[in-house]
Amino acid sequence: MSNLNFKILAKEDKSRTGEITINNKTIKTPGFMPVATRGAIKSTPHTFLDNTDVLLANTYHLYLRPGVDVINELGGIHKFMSWDKVILTDSGGFQAWSLPTKIDNEGVVFKNIYDGSSFKMTPEISIKSQNKIGSDIAMIFDCLIDIKDSKEKQINSINLTRDWGSITKSFHKNKDQALFGIVQGGLHKDLRELSTKYMVDQEYDGYALGGLAIGETNIERKNIVKFTSELLPDEKPKYVMGLGDMHGLVDLIEEGIDLFDCVWPARLARHGKLIVGNTYINIKNKQYENDPEPISNVCTCFTCQNYSKAFLRHLIHNENTTAWLYLTIHNLIQTEIILDEARKSILESTFSTFRKQFEYE
Amino acid sequence: MSNLNFKILAKEDKSRTGEITINNKTIKTPGFMPVATRGAIKSTPHTFLDNTDVLLANTYHLYLRPGVDVINELGGIHKFMSWDKVILTDSGGFQAWSLPTKIDNEGVVFKNIYDGSSFKMTPEISIKSQNKIGSDIAMIFDCLIDIKDSKEKQINSINLTRDWGSITKSFHKNKDQALFGIVQGGLHKDLRELSTKYMVDQEYDGYALGGLAIGETNIERKNIVKFTSELLPDEKPKYVMGLGDMHGLVDLIEEGIDLFDCVWPARLARHGKLIVGNTYINIKNKQYENDPEPISNVCTCFTCQNYSKAFLRHLIHNENTTAWLYLTIHNLIQTEIILDEARKSILESTFSTFRKQFEYE
Repeated sequence: MSNLNFKILAKEDKSRTGEITINNKTIKTPGFMPVATRGAIKSTPHTFLDNTDVLLANTYHLYLRPGVDVINELGGIHKFMSWDKVILTDSGGFQAWSLPTKIDNEGVVFKNIYDGSSFKMTPEISIKSQNKIGSDIAMIFDCLIDIKDSKEKQINSINLTRDWGSITKSFHKNKDQALFGIVQGGLHKDLRELSTKYMVDQEYDGYALGGLAIGETNIERKNIVKFTSELLPDEKPKYVMGLGDMHGLVDLIEEGIDLFDCVWPARLARHGKLIVGNTYINIKNKQYENDPEPISNVCTCFTCQNYSKAFLRHLIHNENTTAWLYLTIHNLIQTEIILDEARKSILESTFSTFRKQFEYE
Repeated sequence: MSNLNFKILAKEDKSRTGEITINNKTIKTPGFMPVATRGAIKSTPHTFLDNTDVLLANTYHLYLRPGVDVINELGGIHKFMSWDKVILTDSGGFQAWSLPTKIDNEGVVFKNIYDGSSFKMTPEISIKSQNKIGSDIAMIFDCLIDIKDSKEKQINSINLTRDWGSITKSFHKNKDQALFGIVQGGLHKDLRELSTKYMVDQEYDGYALGGLAIGETNIERKNIVKFTSELLPDEKPKYVMGLGDMHGLVDLIEEGIDLFDCVWPARLARHGKLIVGNTYINIKNKQYENDPEPISNVCTCFTCQNYSKAFLRHLIHNENTTAWLYLTIHNLIQTEIILDEARKSILESTFSTFRKQFEYE
């Protein structure tokens, strides 16, 4: 019996809007998860994110620091972070790709980024860690490889992800924690199909598409998501990992995707690139030196309610840790607003029109 | 006719508590001004500082970036910073000491820290800049030198400060802006007395003691402040510039000082040193690794209401821009709380008892 319930409120073609309820908390879908890797969004108190339902934290990083036993003793991740809404933990699988590692059949050998020592993350360690961390949703420890890796390696990736998923399930003991499977297979439809079958056979509370947003083109991604999403059970949440640019979000909501996460809106903000409507401005540009207007006249975020572009340009050039805060708030709230509008449009059967604002250029 | 009104509500020996009203805004005294050098407190949205009445911004830095005309066109410093309470601008005099400069009779030749070019800041440029910036309280452009400089140089400093004060007054045209004089003279009582006379003769809305908290001992400072404070008119605000550690604040409130400013509580926080009661803890220490308690059980700040020492220790080691925010809030709110208690104790004639908690060790 799962602690997760998914209710679809409306559909328009393949896009759908609904609610995930879990541990008496709700995620409106399609939903975006800001990334609090180590238990905090970079430079940004989550009190500014009124409408955010769910944050993502990272097992690999929390396992190393402060350690999962510390978090457990302190009452779990929600209390630790002072965030009582939903938390999803990634399993550490992403770091197998983003950091230098050695993969074998049992797991992934990492170098500890803090002291240079080596350690092996296994599906068993990952899920036991997530059980202790106490997130609402855990992810299986998957085998993420490069999108350009050979088909042979992709086959190995889906096989290991299948085996590790099975091990993960057998060690998963936290009844207050849902568990999502992850479909791999690169750009190979036959492998995506096989990986989907493996995952669905193992029966998860939701299904993620991994191995995307790591170098493929928008069209390649769209095709793989379209193909795979149709194979996944419609009654379960579908989650594309690591994607968070607004055009990409809308593009994949069209394929029935319900959840997303990404550092993108926050990282972009720290570089001065800010969401305005369906495009971006770079606040560092000279043209904003005297600009008395907020980033967006229609934005309801704290930053737009308080500051001019001229002030924010001044800050990012001269007081950047303060600037990062204000600019991150804007991009995260704008992402929330775009998803709000997407949900509303699906409810009103106008998504296909709304969608046109966010075509890739 | 000044735009500034100072009302003393209670006295206990030389310490006093009161209210400065200016442009329909109030500063409770004794009061502490957090420093927003370039228009923002480092890493910290001022929305977290409920009880702060006044911020300090810096003419030198704002003159260079974004430029005083930009601020003026945008509606003045309050609108620029989105802070509608009191703002005091320092004149740029502090930078004549803290940065490499060459002082002559007309002013101070600075190197522009941004592009290496040279420019001269004069009393005329400083006050015209402050007029345009539109702070509620401006400072005269003073000649700040090292506390250990020769008596000959100290004599030159008080003479130039007198002459520059006179020039400042003649160019001061903003009727919505009070103007404070600055007493210099190092550790020489005869020079402090002479400088006080020069300043009082020029008639300012308030009087600052400059040239302190730059290397003298606590006892040297106490003696000079005691001596000078008694010479200043009691009906005007008295301000010790650049001091903000809690022991120092209480020590000088005892001498009748009404205003203080300093980067100290914020800078200390960024180094992990946090005010608890009448002492400090270093949150980086291993002993806090598992500590489930807030920094202080009696603190009302956002940070203490939300986070454990274990979480904050984790953040400062692993996500420091977010840590800086939470830790700065704590130290600034604690400073506010100490001043609240000091004001209350003076009203209740218990300052001499309260004061004992904050003896220098």
